[in-house]
Amino acid sequence: MDGWNSRTNMTMLTDFYELTMGKGYLDDGKAEKIVYFDAFFRNVPEQGGYAIMAGLEQVIDYLSDLHFTEEDLQFLSGYGFDEKFIDYLRNFKFSCDVWAVPEGTPIFPREPLIKVRGPALQAQLLETALLCTINHQTLIATKTARIVRAAEGRPIMEFGARRAQGFDASVLGARAAYIAGAAGTSCTICGQQFNIPLSGTMAHSWVMLYDDEFEAFKAYAESYPDKCLLLVDTYDVLKSGIPNAIRCAKEVLEPMGKRLLGIRIDSGDLTYMTQKARKMLDEAGLTDCKITVSNALDEYLIRDLISQGACIDSFGVGERLITSKAEPVFGGVYKIAAVEDDNGNVVPKMKISETTAKVTTPCDKEIVRFYDNDTGKALADVLFVKGEELPNGEPYEIFDPVETWKAKTLTNYTAKKILVEVFRNGELVYEKPSITEIRNYCTKQLDTLWDSVKRFENPHTYYVDLSPKLWQIRDDILRGYRKNKR
Amino acid sequence: MDGWNSRTNMTMLTDFYELTMGKGYLDDGKAEKIVYFDAFFRNVPEQGGYAIMAGLEQVIDYLSDLHFTEEDLQFLSGYGFDEKFIDYLRNFKFSCDVWAVPEGTPIFPREPLIKVRGPALQAQLLETALLCTINHQTLIATKTARIVRAAEGRPIMEFGARRAQGFDASVLGARAAYIAGAAGTSCTICGQQFNIPLSGTMAHSWVMLYDDEFEAFKAYAESYPDKCLLLVDTYDVLKSGIPNAIRCAKEVLEPMGKRLLGIRIDSGDLTYMTQKARKMLDEAGLTDCKITVSNALDEYLIRDLISQGACIDSFGVGERLITSKAEPVFGGVYKIAAVEDDNGNVVPKMKISETTAKVTTPCDKEIVRFYDNDTGKALADVLFVKGEELPNGEPYEIFDPVETWKAKTLTNYTAKKILVEVFRNGELVYEKPSITEIRNYCTKQLDTLWDSVKRFENPHTYYVDLSPKLWQIRDDILRGYRKNKR
Repeated sequence: MDGWNSRTNMTMLTDFYELTMGKGYLDDGKAEKIVYFDAFFRNVPEQGGYAIMAGLEQVIDYLSDLHFTEEDLQFLSGYGFDEKFIDYLRNFKFSCDVWAVPEGTPIFPREPLIKVRGPALQAQLLETALLCTINHQTLIATKTARIVRAAEGRPIMEFGARRAQGFDASVLGARAAYIAGAAGTSCTICGQQFNIPLSGTMAHSWVMLYDDEFEAFKAYAESYPDKCLLLVDTYDVLKSGIPNAIRCAKEVLEPMGKRLLGIRIDSGDLTYMTQKARKMLDEAGLTDCKITVSNALDEYLIRDLISQGACIDSFGVGERLITSKAEPVFGGVYKIAAVEDDNGNVVPKMKISETTAKVTTPCDKEIVRFYDNDTGKALADVLFVKGEELPNGEPYEIFDPVETWKAKTLTNYTAKKILVEVFRNGELVYEKPSITEIRNYCTKQLDTLWDSVKRFENPHTYYVDLSPKLWQIRDDILRGYRKNKR
Repeated sequence: MDGWNSRTNMTMLTDFYELTMGKGYLDDGKAEKIVYFDAFFRNVPEQGGYAIMAGLEQVIDYLSDLHFTEEDLQFLSGYGFDEKFIDYLRNFKFSCDVWAVPEGTPIFPREPLIKVRGPALQAQLLETALLCTINHQTLIATKTARIVRAAEGRPIMEFGARRAQGFDASVLGARAAYIAGAAGTSCTICGQQFNIPLSGTMAHSWVMLYDDEFEAFKAYAESYPDKCLLLVDTYDVLKSGIPNAIRCAKEVLEPMGKRLLGIRIDSGDLTYMTQKARKMLDEAGLTDCKITVSNALDEYLIRDLISQGACIDSFGVGERLITSKAEPVFGGVYKIAAVEDDNGNVVPKMKISETTAKVTTPCDKEIVRFYDNDTGKALADVLFVKGEELPNGEPYEIFDPVETWKAKTLTNYTAKKILVEVFRNGELVYEKPSITEIRNYCTKQLDTLWDSVKRFENPHTYYVDLSPKLWQIRDDILRGYRKNKR
C-alpha cells in the first residue's frame, strides 16, 4: 500500500538555486540560522471564493525521506560544489518544525498553508517539492469542489488519467479530486494505492470489436450480468445505441433475472440526448436504468445541463478536472516571514514590492477561524502573531488590512486555530488521517462556507484580516522602508 | 541513472474499464484476437501548425515492465474479478508489436503517432498510460518549441517545477522542454536523471536573509566568484538592485580579477527595466554582464519584449511552459484501426461519428513525409496502407481527404517513412537515442518546416493526405455505413 509514496527519493527534486543558495549560506555561516518560511497563495483560481487544501500527505512523505544518496552527492560534486558543502549534505538530517492546514480545509489568499521553521539551508531546500505538491493537489481539489457543487448531489466520477500531465498528475490528481467530493476514479492504481472507489465499464473500442452493436452489448451483459452499463454512442445514440441497449435488457438480462444498470452517452447534445433516452428507457419499463454522461464536462456545462432539464444521474469528468483546464496553475509561493537573531528573538521579515499583491505578511503566524455559534458558518479568518492571546468569545473587532476603515465586530462565535503541528524538530508528530476522514472533513468544512462564498461568478470575498498587533508590525516595516529606501 | 524510470511499476496505471473490458474479452473468447490501435490527435494546441512528438522513451520503459504483481492480483480479485481473469493476468506477458514516431519529430493531426498490434486484451490495457505519457510530454515539447522560436536564438531556461502538476510533470516536462530546444532546467533531479544542463543562482529569500541588499550580493559573489549572477528586484531594481550589483562588481569581484556574469529581473516592466539596466551596466563598464528575465513569460510576451527593444540575453520560463497554461491538454486518443479475422486478414475498422473530426482513419498505416530535394523542406505527409508500394521519386499527386478536388503534384522529392519499429512480439527492437541525439534531431526536423507552418497565429495547414487506396477503403466503409445504418 505504500507503493506510490515509496518511489524514487525526491530530495533532488529541488530547484538548482536552492542548492547554490545552500552552499552560499554554508560559506557565509548562515546555514544554521533559524528562519520561518510561509507557503501561501495570492489568488483563488477562476476568481473563485475559496480553495481546498490538499497534498499534505505527500509533503509529509517527502519530508520524512529527505536525504542525499552517495549517487546524489557524486552528481553534485561533478557540478562543482565543494567538499565542504557535499559533506554537509552527506550529514544532512531534517530538523525543521512544520505546521500545516489539514487537507480538505477551505483556504483563502495570504494565509500560511504550511509554515516551516528551521535552519536556513534546510528550509530553503524543500521549497520546490513542497510547492509542487501543494500547488498541484490544491488546484485539483479546488476545481473538483466546484464541479461537485454544480452537480447538486449527483455523483461525479474522475475519468481524466489519459489527459493528465503525467502519472503523478493522474494518480494524485484523482486523490485530490476524491478529497474534494468526487465519488471515485477510473484510475486503477489510484484506487489501489489510496483506497478510492473505482469505476469503469467499456470504451468505444469494445463496441467496435464486434460486427454489430447488439452483439457487443450482449457479450458485455453476459460477462457482467450484475453491473451492466452500456456505452450507447458508438454509432447513433437514439437510432441504434438506446434501442440495442433496451433489446439487451429485454433479451439478455431479463431472462437471467437481471436489470440494465445504466447507459453512458459520451458525445452530442447531452440535454436532448438524455431527455430522449430517458423517455425511451422509461417507455420500455427501464425506469431504474441510470443515465451517465461524459465529454468535456466542467462545472459550467454541468450547471447548464441541469438547468436545461437534462436527465442525468451521474457525470464522468475528464480533462477539465484533472488539469483544471480553465486555470491550470495554482500560484502558491514560499516566502521568508521571519528570522531568529543570535539571541533567539524572532525578527519579522517581509518582501516589499511595488505591486501591493506581492507584499508579504511578516511574522510567525497563527490562523484563527471564527465560526458563528448559531449557524455554524465561518465568519472570517484572522491572522495573529504566534503567542498572542487568542479571542475567546468576547466581542472581537475585525478590520480589513488594506481598507482599515472597514471594520466589523464579531460576537457569539467560536474561534478555532487552523494550523496543526506536523513535524517537531524533524520528527513527525502528526497522525495522518485516512482518505475517508479527509473527505468527510472536507464535506463538513465546505458546509461551513456561506453559499455566497461558493458562487462560481463574483463570489463574496471571505475576510482574512490581521490582528492589530500583526497589522502594526507590518505597517511599521512598511513605514521604515519608505523612510529608508535602500 | 535509471531511478526515475524504475519507480513503482505502472501496470495498474490503467483506466478501470480497460480491465472490465479485458475480462469481457476473455469471457467472449476475444482476448487473443489481433487488433490494431492508433494513438493520434485531432488538433494542435493553441491553433498551432505542428506538434512535437515526445514521451516515447517513457512509453518504452512502461511497456518493458508490464506485469501484474501478486499484490495487484489480490486487489483486483477483491474487486470482483474472477479467478479465470486473474490467472490470465498472472501469466500476462507483453507480446505486442509497436511502431512509433521518434521523439523530436514534428507531427500533425490524424497521423498515427504510435501503432500497437497485438492481442485485444493487451492492446487495450496499455491505452491509459500510453496516452497519459504521450499527451503530457508532447504538449510540453510543442509549447516549448513555440517559446524557443519566439526567443530568436536567446537561451530559454525551464524554471517551472514548483508550478508543475506533480513531480512527473516537473521532471518529464523539463525533459520534453529540453528536447524541444530549452537550454536547460532548474529541476535538479531532471538534470541528474536525464543529463540535462542545470541552472540556478538565488531567490529573493537570499537577499531577504541579509539586512542589506549589498551585503547579500557580496556574500554571493564571495561564494561564487566565477559564476556570479544577482537577482536585482527584491527591493527596487533601478534605485537599489542595479546600483548594488554594480558596486558588487567593482568592490567585490574586480579586486579578485572576476567579472559580474549577469543580473536577473523577475518583476516589473521588463522592456523598460532591461533597457535602463543595460544602460547603467554599460556605463559602469559591465558590457559583458548578461541580463536574464523571468516572470510569467510565454511566446507572446517574449516576442513583444524583443520587438519593443528590451535588452535581454536569456529567459527563465516557468508556469506557462511547464503546464502549457494557455492550453493544458493535448488531446491524444487511442482508437481501433483494424482487426485480424480468423484467417489473418486485416479488416479495417473505423469509428463513424456525426462530428467529422471524430471519424477515424482505418487500416494498418504508414506515414510518409515528402521532402523537397532543393530546399530540404517538408512538403506534405501521406498516409499509406501498410504494404502499399511507396513513391520513389516519380511525380506523385496528393489530394485533400475531405476537399478531394484540392490536389497537387509533387516532384523532385525524397519520401521517408516516419514510423519506426519499437517492439516486435513484445521484445524491444529499438535503440533508444540519447537525449542529446533527440534534441539535435528535433532542431533539424524543425528546420524542415516552412516558417508559415510555424507561425503562432493562423499558420499554414500542413498537408496530411491519404493514399488513393486508403482513401478508397475509408470511403467504402463510410458509404457502407450510410446504406446500412445499424
